[in-house]
Amino acid sequence: VNTPQPATEPAASAIRTVAVIGLGLLGGSLAKCVHNRTETPGVRVIGWARRSETRQFAIENDIVDAVSDDVIEACELADLAVIATPVDRIADYAIQIAAACPGILITDVGSTKLRIVEAVNQTPAAQRFVAAHPIAGSEKTGIEHAFGELFCDKPIVITPSGNEQPGAIAAVEQFWKSTGGRTMHLTPRQHDDLLAITSHAPHLISSLVARQVPAEAIGMVGTGWLDTTRIAAGDEALWTAIVSENRTAILAALTAAQKDLTHLIHIVQDSDDESLAEFLRTARLIRQRASNG
Amino acid sequence: VNTPQPATEPAASAIRTVAVIGLGLLGGSLAKCVHNRTETPGVRVIGWARRSETRQFAIENDIVDAVSDDVIEACELADLAVIATPVDRIADYAIQIAAACPGILITDVGSTKLRIVEAVNQTPAAQRFVAAHPIAGSEKTGIEHAFGELFCDKPIVITPSGNEQPGAIAAVEQFWKSTGGRTMHLTPRQHDDLLAITSHAPHLISSLVARQVPAEAIGMVGTGWLDTTRIAAGDEALWTAIVSENRTAILAALTAAQKDLTHLIHIVQDSDDESLAEFLRTARLIRQRASNG
Repeated sequence: VNTPQPATEPAASAIRTVAVIGLGLLGGSLAKCVHNRTETPGVRVIGWARRSETRQFAIENDIVDAVSDDVIEACELADLAVIATPVDRIADYAIQIAAACPGILITDVGSTKLRIVEAVNQTPAAQRFVAAHPIAGSEKTGIEHAFGELFCDKPIVITPSGNEQPGAIAAVEQFWKSTGGRTMHLTPRQHDDLLAITSHAPHLISSLVARQVPAEAIGMVGTGWLDTTRIAAGDEALWTAIVSENRTAILAALTAAQKDLTHLIHIVQDSDDESLAEFLRTARLIRQRASNG
Repeated sequence: VNTPQPATEPAASAIRTVAVIGLGLLGGSLAKCVHNRTETPGVRVIGWARRSETRQFAIENDIVDAVSDDVIEACELADLAVIATPVDRIADYAIQIAAACPGILITDVGSTKLRIVEAVNQTPAAQRFVAAHPIAGSEKTGIEHAFGELFCDKPIVITPSGNEQPGAIAAVEQFWKSTGGRTMHLTPRQHDDLLAITSHAPHLISSLVARQVPAEAIGMVGTGWLDTTRIAAGDEALWTAIVSENRTAILAALTAAQKDLTHLIHIVQDSDDESLAEFLRTARLIRQRASNG
């Protein structure tokens, strides 16, 4: 007799084991999300971290099913590797993992995309690498701040290279959707140009604002300053690497900001209250649209 | 018989009725704080607001004991008037209230101090005006966002003019302490110079960061950008008035920021990662000290 067949399962259901390479805030949060969620019971999470303390923390806090101190060993049984290291090491790991693990799919969480995709494109890894950037994070770093809901309702940008094998993008995209995020597609260059404006240059400018405060005024800052400079508490090594990977677009964004600052200084100097109100109103409308969006 | 006398009451205990002039976020929060707190039962709060809807909201939500549509009438029975209007109207109200209400003490919440104190100093009001700035606020405006704990643990800067009558500063300072804030003293000029750096210029730069985002990228902003630009949602009329009152110090702060931005652009252009890490580290250390302070 013909028994009813289940509808074709989406490709991501083939992902039974996920290797998370790098267990910082993002990798730790992703591991927690996948390991603990109820919608995908039975998906195993293997974590790799450089430091033994981090691996131990991941096991003791039930963030992963298992750990390894070797990237390739962590990936050996995995259907998908998610690379969550600093951006300047992502391409190398993707290439190594693809070479050692036949059939594995690979994605990442890096906040820059163009140089990573270009480097992977030079190798056969390009067929199985689907570059991604979940726009989620915190000024806090480290697995001890990981939380499984970090990706909920966050934009997750997929930046296809055009060299992916059939089905790879769909499978990885469905994996990312399962974290609760909202996926969207951009080219790597579009991504990097926009992120320079929405994230990388704002990070540097937030640091710049923090730097202006002399020691005697630190006790006098208000909640406005604390909000504006929150990301300035971030890790400088991570951000130095991001600037290095997206230097051209960041320079363009900083130069645009410099031009607008010169415009602002002229407005203030000239007591041109109408232009100042317009300057502030433009900003308010964009900020309000972003909150509501 | 001799009954035991209570210890001498501090001067502020003589404040039985407070007039709050302007019922926006700050005035409304102050009214709520004084009217509802249990430590000072029996202190009456009279509110003045330009708009009848605001006065009605204040009564219906039990934020004040009574309202008036006339500033002088609101102050007639008060021991203390707190002026919580936009900064460009504070000096005029202080002078009018002092002229009409003998014996009343006057303070304010303005985020600029020098021009207000200088204007009041031209008049007899100087004897009874104790300028203050509670460093508390929000990007939200209006009495509907008022909350009585707004001042808890916030710095409240008192900027004496030197012309106050004996006891006036102590009485007003104790009133401010009773809101839960931490008072400190600065000269009006010190205050304005520091606030330009910690609040006024950061506000403008936060708006500048918000302005850089093109429409198509609004859906892609992350929590970092949302934090950095939170205050850019503030009311442009209030901030245009603040810039007008503290123009020179704000220009100096913006010019210092411009110089640091040029430095940053050179660092990024030259791929000088060591200087970039140092730039970010300086910022992080100041930001971390501010959080812990």
